[in-house]
Amino acid sequence: MWSDLEPVGRASSGGYRRFAWTADDHTLREWFAAECARRGLDLTTDRVGNQWGWWWDGPGTVDEAVAAGRKALVIGSHLDSVPDGGAFDGPLGVVSSLAAVDLLRAAGVTPQVPVAVTNFVDEEGARFGIACAGSRVLTGQLAPERALALTDADGTTYADALRAAGRDPAELGPDPETLGRIGAFVELHVEQGRALVDLDAPVAVASDIWPHGRWRFDFPGEANHAGTTRLVDRRDAMLGYADLVLGARHVATQRGCVATVGKVHVTPGGVNAIPSHVTGWLDARGADEDQVVAMVEELTARAGEMGATVTQESWTPTTRFDAALSERLRRVLDRDAAVSAPVLGTGAGHDAGILATAGVPSAMLFVRNPTGVSHSPAEHAEADDCHAGVEALAACVQDLTTEGAA
Amino acid sequence: MWSDLEPVGRASSGGYRRFAWTADDHTLREWFAAECARRGLDLTTDRVGNQWGWWWDGPGTVDEAVAAGRKALVIGSHLDSVPDGGAFDGPLGVVSSLAAVDLLRAAGVTPQVPVAVTNFVDEEGARFGIACAGSRVLTGQLAPERALALTDADGTTYADALRAAGRDPAELGPDPETLGRIGAFVELHVEQGRALVDLDAPVAVASDIWPHGRWRFDFPGEANHAGTTRLVDRRDAMLGYADLVLGARHVATQRGCVATVGKVHVTPGGVNAIPSHVTGWLDARGADEDQVVAMVEELTARAGEMGATVTQESWTPTTRFDAALSERLRRVLDRDAAVSAPVLGTGAGHDAGILATAGVPSAMLFVRNPTGVSHSPAEHAEADDCHAGVEALAACVQDLTTEGAA
Repeated sequence: MWSDLEPVGRASSGGYRRFAWTADDHTLREWFAAECARRGLDLTTDRVGNQWGWWWDGPGTVDEAVAAGRKALVIGSHLDSVPDGGAFDGPLGVVSSLAAVDLLRAAGVTPQVPVAVTNFVDEEGARFGIACAGSRVLTGQLAPERALALTDADGTTYADALRAAGRDPAELGPDPETLGRIGAFVELHVEQGRALVDLDAPVAVASDIWPHGRWRFDFPGEANHAGTTRLVDRRDAMLGYADLVLGARHVATQRGCVATVGKVHVTPGGVNAIPSHVTGWLDARGADEDQVVAMVEELTARAGEMGATVTQESWTPTTRFDAALSERLRRVLDRDAAVSAPVLGTGAGHDAGILATAGVPSAMLFVRNPTGVSHSPAEHAEADDCHAGVEALAACVQDLTTEGAA
Repeated sequence: MWSDLEPVGRASSGGYRRFAWTADDHTLREWFAAECARRGLDLTTDRVGNQWGWWWDGPGTVDEAVAAGRKALVIGSHLDSVPDGGAFDGPLGVVSSLAAVDLLRAAGVTPQVPVAVTNFVDEEGARFGIACAGSRVLTGQLAPERALALTDADGTTYADALRAAGRDPAELGPDPETLGRIGAFVELHVEQGRALVDLDAPVAVASDIWPHGRWRFDFPGEANHAGTTRLVDRRDAMLGYADLVLGARHVATQRGCVATVGKVHVTPGGVNAIPSHVTGWLDARGADEDQVVAMVEELTARAGEMGATVTQESWTPTTRFDAALSERLRRVLDRDAAVSAPVLGTGAGHDAGILATAGVPSAMLFVRNPTGVSHSPAEHAEADDCHAGVEALAACVQDLTTEGAA
């Protein structure tokens, strides 16, 4: 599977650029459909475009099983990437899910509830700016009319991108029928930090997704000539921005959070022009919600002294995964492992978090990343750890589908 | 003339965007040609594309006059603009020159040497990044092969832009024949600061152009996830950049220079990605060359501690205008004015500086700008001051062409 995926959307840097509803995304979706077909998994596509490969040997259809109280266990992740992303963020969960199905079948396991492998569309939001768009629309957390109006960097709307990919924009919307099939969701993902390296363990269970949000800081200035304007006469918008960058690091350190300023827009943006306007975007997260809120308040006040206006673009409080499900996965992992599986929070958003917010019992497994680096070609997972991940996921599926449905 | 120019390249902000070799630039060049034709000025275009409107009533041709030792007095400026520029930077010099010709003719003045009104192409360098490209190529200070390879923000080369404007790129090169015609150059320009406001005078004579240069600061980092990467594990290229911005202001204040960071490029530039590379451009100038050099050395050392590499993109030492010519202009202005004309240095580069460097006796007149603001729609000149500028320029032309050629 990895050798098929390896060339798709790969740049000369070694990084991947797999944006939603592009030609590369289409290739990945075709690959997923072929892998499902090869295994006899019945492929469905919901109103949003998320793909589902169903493993259910009966009795009856999946819908009849669901109607009879046998809701499905869903595993999987996404195949899209950030700009210059790594090979594992997303695809590791999809590949491991398909491999887990193979492992369980080879062992003669017959699940008592339907199992689906899923490929969520547009998890990274790299093209249209909203992360987890596929699961958000599915669950009604993102209105279809808002999604359809989103534009990419070339000005293409989400609606036009859907049309170009052969889909009908009018179809886009919440899909309670698909959602109603799901009894539980377990997403396996490469770890996006170094905790498992430090703990010397290959696989962890997630506890929660940190509260996180984005804020736009607009600093005003006055355009003027860089050579002829005395320093005392200047109103240079870049100074406030620079103060925000350094302030964010300082306050985040003090409060035990993380804060990042990774995007900036300067007007007019000439070498010899004093900036009349600078917009910077702050990404703020942390384990402790109160500290994150206090950090942003402190930075807002500080930027206000420089004349800035601050706009919250998004905010997601702490997302707790299903405690009973997570504890059950931890026990399954402990049963087979030499060391106890760690339980880790994460600063990254995931489709599993969106489903958890929608009331679906959800959990995550993390596979060790020796570099700790994520959203970069340097992201990595060793083959042994990938195999451990598949075995852990297979054990969880077996436990959840044969010893009592989740 | 102003009502003709007013709508060309004007944005909804009220600012102008008149980049070299665009459709708007073409409109301005056609306007210049028509104004020359209306006055019977003989239009020539040199190998670079700079336009010259010749006023010479004989005896013989302009070239015969030059051969006989009667080198021309050139007046004029440029018509292009920075992004979102003002109405006066450039056009005031061209319009005032044409108006000065009208005034002298109405007064029955007959110059003893040819007079040319010029429109230098691409003075601002807003499209291809090199200021005064028209006069630099003319004088051999910018090699045509380097100019032709320059690209604009859309990736269009200077060569392709010339072709699109109907010019042959092979023609581009130094033009000693045109240059050899010029006995002296006087450029009138709107002041780009507040000195004439403070001094309560409408017109000044320039003394020199401050030493000035541009440096590119490249800060390295490591791309990583903004949510999952601990602060201690980060190498965030934005921190060094922010330190440069604040450091530049601090050191410039200490050393009595000006320093500006008005342009920045961030890789990958995502809200949730730690920057792996940030490039910032420093514009540094000052009255004292030693202080400017020391300031840049100090900032280079400081950025080096953050891992940055620093590249000098341009450097122009102090450009002194012709002392005898400037003193003569000052005496002419004093003769007619209630207050003595101030003599001012300037932090801005000009075509007159390029010609001075090429050995052409050059001088400048500045017209009061009540806002002091430049490279912005807020740039201004009052009608009375514009008229004072035209009268001053006409008096200078009369003095230089009838009481002994410059």
